[in-house]
Amino acid sequence: MEALSDGVMGFAMTLPVVSIAVHPPGTPIQQLLRAWPSLLAYVLSFMTIGAAWIAHSALTDRFERTDSIFLRLNLLTLLVVVFLPFPTGLVADALRSTEGEREAVTLYGLTLLAIRLMGFALVAYARHENLYPPDAGDEELKRAQQYPLPVVIGYVVALLIGLAWPTAAVVVYFGIAVILVVPFRAVAHVVFGHA
Amino acid sequence: MEALSDGVMGFAMTLPVVSIAVHPPGTPIQQLLRAWPSLLAYVLSFMTIGAAWIAHSALTDRFERTDSIFLRLNLLTLLVVVFLPFPTGLVADALRSTEGEREAVTLYGLTLLAIRLMGFALVAYARHENLYPPDAGDEELKRAQQYPLPVVIGYVVALLIGLAWPTAAVVVYFGIAVILVVPFRAVAHVVFGHA
Amino acid sequence: MEALSDGVMGFAMTLPVVSIAVHPPGTPIQQLLRAWPSLLAYVLSFMTIGAAWIAHSALTDRFERTDSIFLRLNLLTLLVVVFLPFPTGLVADALRSTEGEREAVTLYGLTLLAIRLMGFALVAYARHENLYPPDAGDEELKRAQQYPLPVVIGYVVALLIGLAWPTAAVVVYFGIAVILVVPFRAVAHVVFGHA
Amino acid sequence: MEALSDGVMGFAMTLPVVSIAVHPPGTPIQQLLRAWPSLLAYVLSFMTIGAAWIAHSALTDRFERTDSIFLRLNLLTLLVVVFLPFPTGLVADALRSTEGEREAVTLYGLTLLAIRLMGFALVAYARHENLYPPDAGDEELKRAQQYPLPVVIGYVVALLIGLAWPTAAVVVYFGIAVILVVPFRAVAHVVFGHA
Repeated sequence: MEALSDGVMGFAMTLPVVSIAVHPPGTPIQQLLRAWPSLLAYVLSFMTIGAAWIAHSALTDRFERTDSIFLRLNLLTLLVVVFLPFPTGLVADALRSTEGEREAVTLYGLTLLAIRLMGFALVAYARHENLYPPDAGDEELKRAQQYPLPVVIGYVVALLIGLAWPTAAVVVYFGIAVILVVPFRAVAHVVFGHA
Repeated sequence: MEALSDGVMGFAMTLPVVSIAVHPPGTPIQQLLRAWPSLLAYVLSFMTIGAAWIAHSALTDRFERTDSIFLRLNLLTLLVVVFLPFPTGLVADALRSTEGEREAVTLYGLTLLAIRLMGFALVAYARHENLYPPDAGDEELKRAQQYPLPVVIGYVVALLIGLAWPTAAVVVYFGIAVILVVPFRAVAHVVFGHA
Repeated sequence: MEALSDGVMGFAMTLPVVSIAVHPPGTPIQQLLRAWPSLLAYVLSFMTIGAAWIAHSALTDRFERTDSIFLRLNLLTLLVVVFLPFPTGLVADALRSTEGEREAVTLYGLTLLAIRLMGFALVAYARHENLYPPDAGDEELKRAQQYPLPVVIGYVVALLIGLAWPTAAVVVYFGIAVILVVPFRAVAHVVFGHA
Repeated sequence: MEALSDGVMGFAMTLPVVSIAVHPPGTPIQQLLRAWPSLLAYVLSFMTIGAAWIAHSALTDRFERTDSIFLRLNLLTLLVVVFLPFPTGLVADALRSTEGEREAVTLYGLTLLAIRLMGFALVAYARHENLYPPDAGDEELKRAQQYPLPVVIGYVVALLIGLAWPTAAVVVYFGIAVILVVPFRAVAHVVFGHA
């Protein structure tokens, strides 16, 4: 299951690059300027799926066994994850033309929310069926299981913001992704020393 | 073998998303409306290959060893699985224009049938050559081995329906995929409680 | 190394399907007729890379350890494998128009030959550096190591045939791929019984 | 983590082939001539990501454990790796038209430099957090950790060269990739014998 999940998530993470790699004629600077909404959308999707993947493997790495129901819940989660490039492309288009931005950003947010809710279902099922070995009650697992709640709240807030100011919602989604992925403590450590 | 199978199946599952991700101009709502046959075809293919993958890994996870003949049977199975995006695209086109729908749906059904028949061959060979360890006769494996028969019957019925009412056959294929993938018992459990 | 090799080979195997999945308008039957050179080229590439992958994993599955030189030889092998979709597309185009068929088929054959020669280099290096554990001298490994020679001879013969009759060479390449991938003994077994 | 990294890197390595596989009409010889900048850029990217992957797995293969901060640093590294096909395409276009070559080559070089600097961060973090088991201080690991410095110096030199002579910088990047990937000692061994 791990290998398929990793492969499908990796593919979904890198898929939006295809739309960047195929570029119209122009000087490199012009192309960069023209491609920035796609680039932003690519970075956003990559970090969002990456954060979901970190949460996902924090859960499944400790599994002692799995069953066919978990495999199917997992498959449905992947189905939603792989759908993400579609609203990602819509957001990139809307950033370019500002037309239909609200619908695009709302669909994007609903997809993110659905991914996280599937994550809740996976955690709930794994706990209920005791898929973890008895000694898996460590700190990191607990954090991985409790973490989704603030993220879900953040997504709901961004969804509501997006109904009024779609561009602001994109900034919030970006901020959530940065908070989830960039290891600030490690960066601070490197910059400010070993204190 | 697992890694290649997982990679190839994951790729085949996500490939139809490429055709959704590249979308013509229009507002997001218009694009969603225009893309719905591709979306439906994507969900259908994802769930169908996903179900085949669950069946496949239920078989091979318990292998003690493998041999070069099984590897080759497996390769031929993947060849058919990876072909699925072609009839999937045909069905999506036919849903859009209703032209040539019968041929598209029939080719789609024949491909699904071929995938399941290859699954039969894999099971038969693995049993005949004793690729399973002696203690692998557990409940889930037996279910995995007996399960394909109702699915094959369902596909044959859908094929025959498709000759007369192609759209109805798409509904049947969708229903079979939903039955195979959605863990109804787990959903009922969540909705109706722990009874 | 296994995971990257499997991923890259799986990707190279399934890549030609992308060109089939994107199809011009027309009824399904017309599209099938128009797509047959791409379909044939897809099946040919899938089986050829699949055969190379079987040979490759027969070698590396038994490795006790690996070193950075083997990793790099392996990377160069993958470089040639991943190049295959390019001549595959050329052959598909040439089958359609019969123009420039000889060059396309020759480039295809040279790529196949290069893949197999890289396989020789991998085997030679692994033997010289004793990457196998002492007890890995089993029958199947020996067969995997001796097998490439008839294949290489077959490819050279097909290359020469292709200079005069390009279409005949495609038939020969197809025949070699079928012989390498289809487990005839198992099929005969099923058809003629357990004798 | 290994599986996702391998999958994403493998995908990024093979992605530029997509742009080669889709080719305009013309005889195979004409297509080869027209495709050479893409082919060169493909080989360059494949070998560069391949070298980064060898360095990456030399580090992580010996890990005893990993933590969520390393996973996130790794994700950011992959983000930069997967960006590489974009400047690769720009360089291929610039080789074709010689217009905007300096910007394209500079962006390419900055991306390569960023990949290697992320590699430094991964090594530094893994050392600081003692992710290696105590007995992992072997020769090959030490070499893998010290190796990036000459590569980084080479990339900086190539960047400076590229500001004045962009084409020369492409040659230098190609040379660095060849030095990193081609196992010259093994080749010399084969050519000049066992001395």
